[in-house]
Amino acid sequence: MNNLASMQPSNIREMIRRNELVKPTAGMANGFAQANLAILKKEDAFDFLLFAQRNPKSCPILDVTEPGSPIPQMAAPTGDIRTDIPKYRIYRHGTLAEEVTDITSYWEEDMVGFLIGCSFTFEHALLQNGIPIRHIEEERNVPMYVTNISCTPAGKFHGMTVASMRPIPQEDVVRAVQVTSRFPAVHGAPIHIGNPEALGITDIARPDFGDAVTVRANEVPVFWACGVTPQAVAMATKPALMITHAPGHMFITDLRDEELGVL
Amino acid sequence: MNNLASMQPSNIREMIRRNELVKPTAGMANGFAQANLAILKKEDAFDFLLFAQRNPKSCPILDVTEPGSPIPQMAAPTGDIRTDIPKYRIYRHGTLAEEVTDITSYWEEDMVGFLIGCSFTFEHALLQNGIPIRHIEEERNVPMYVTNISCTPAGKFHGMTVASMRPIPQEDVVRAVQVTSRFPAVHGAPIHIGNPEALGITDIARPDFGDAVTVRANEVPVFWACGVTPQAVAMATKPALMITHAPGHMFITDLRDEELGVL
Repeated sequence: MNNLASMQPSNIREMIRRNELVKPTAGMANGFAQANLAILKKEDAFDFLLFAQRNPKSCPILDVTEPGSPIPQMAAPTGDIRTDIPKYRIYRHGTLAEEVTDITSYWEEDMVGFLIGCSFTFEHALLQNGIPIRHIEEERNVPMYVTNISCTPAGKFHGMTVASMRPIPQEDVVRAVQVTSRFPAVHGAPIHIGNPEALGITDIARPDFGDAVTVRANEVPVFWACGVTPQAVAMATKPALMITHAPGHMFITDLRDEELGVL
Repeated sequence: MNNLASMQPSNIREMIRRNELVKPTAGMANGFAQANLAILKKEDAFDFLLFAQRNPKSCPILDVTEPGSPIPQMAAPTGDIRTDIPKYRIYRHGTLAEEVTDITSYWEEDMVGFLIGCSFTFEHALLQNGIPIRHIEEERNVPMYVTNISCTPAGKFHGMTVASMRPIPQEDVVRAVQVTSRFPAVHGAPIHIGNPEALGITDIARPDFGDAVTVRANEVPVFWACGVTPQAVAMATKPALMITHAPGHMFITDLRDEELGVL
């Protein structure tokens, strides 16, 4: 993986485009931001963008393609969202229909792609600050919970905020807030510290998505708004066709993690 | 150098202690802060610390050893400032007397070591943000200038601020300010943008220390307070004995660069 870690995003995207890398993208192109993908028809694009604009913590938009164009001009001008993700999911009427490695044949002239910030960037910043990430240590998916916090609706899009949870050592909690505060484009500061019940979460050991992780005695559960939120919200409206990345199989942008820091 | 780049600070310090690495430390222990060293007798230590406290941009203190102790408890509890720097300079009455790789035989029971933040940390952050650093590109020492900005004096210590200059592309100047603002412990934000004359610098091609670098047509000279300031100020008082690191031969701390970010 060493080689993939130090490669440029454009070179990795080319390998993915040639189906030479059909696997999760964690650890690839170190230092560059990876993104969630949601593709909707233009008729839903405005409301979805407005929803994101109103709920920036759970829906931090990195780039939006021109209707019909698969090129993310801001995030990766040499990229193509139809081919540069290792694995896609096709949802029809809100139900997973199939997983594919290329969506060129599904592409329609009125489609709009949304690249949404992903927690890899702020997790990298936490690690750089010596703060451990439990689900990485335990080689699991991050635990995610549907909270009782309503998103601000926009058009047909409405729903509850999904939060990811990371157990943080008591003495690192303030620093974790500072570190992630710098990255509003990738979920930013936590939405809650310490009391799962306050979010309507009754059993921390039973996440709604992802895997449970160990929370030790000296650790505090800290919750961040999660990029699953916009996908879950969009899917709940059961659009005729919606395309996303498969979990962990992200779009690698040309944006440096550090460039996403507001200061 | 790849190996040295990824090694832990403590392991590199051990190699330096055994005189296995007598060379500049740039690029070693990537991600960890390196520090300037100034050692003074205890009788001058308070005034020097006060001077630093009053001039934090040019004299950002990372750690101060207990009088007589060579151990920097905050910055590197397993380190020893008498042995863990590749090359030292011994100044007597303000004049360079000799260069050595170990100062154990010079150490006195009333000596105090000051570890002072170094620009490597913020230069790394600039590079991470895609902002070029000319003197690194041209493989020169950074150009430094004595400015007309007086430091706030403390006791016997007084003098002018020395500034380092980096030519920054016009479109990156604001970002360079933001990026370096996060790191007040390593000189922080620039002290001046754009007009050398305003700092009393009459010829940008003739720095007082270091080497001149190319300034291109679309670039703006940006000035940061420089860690040479406290050494120059201390040396101007001509103490009987003062010990510093040799230029570029820094003390590698256990502090992560990112931990020095205020947010």
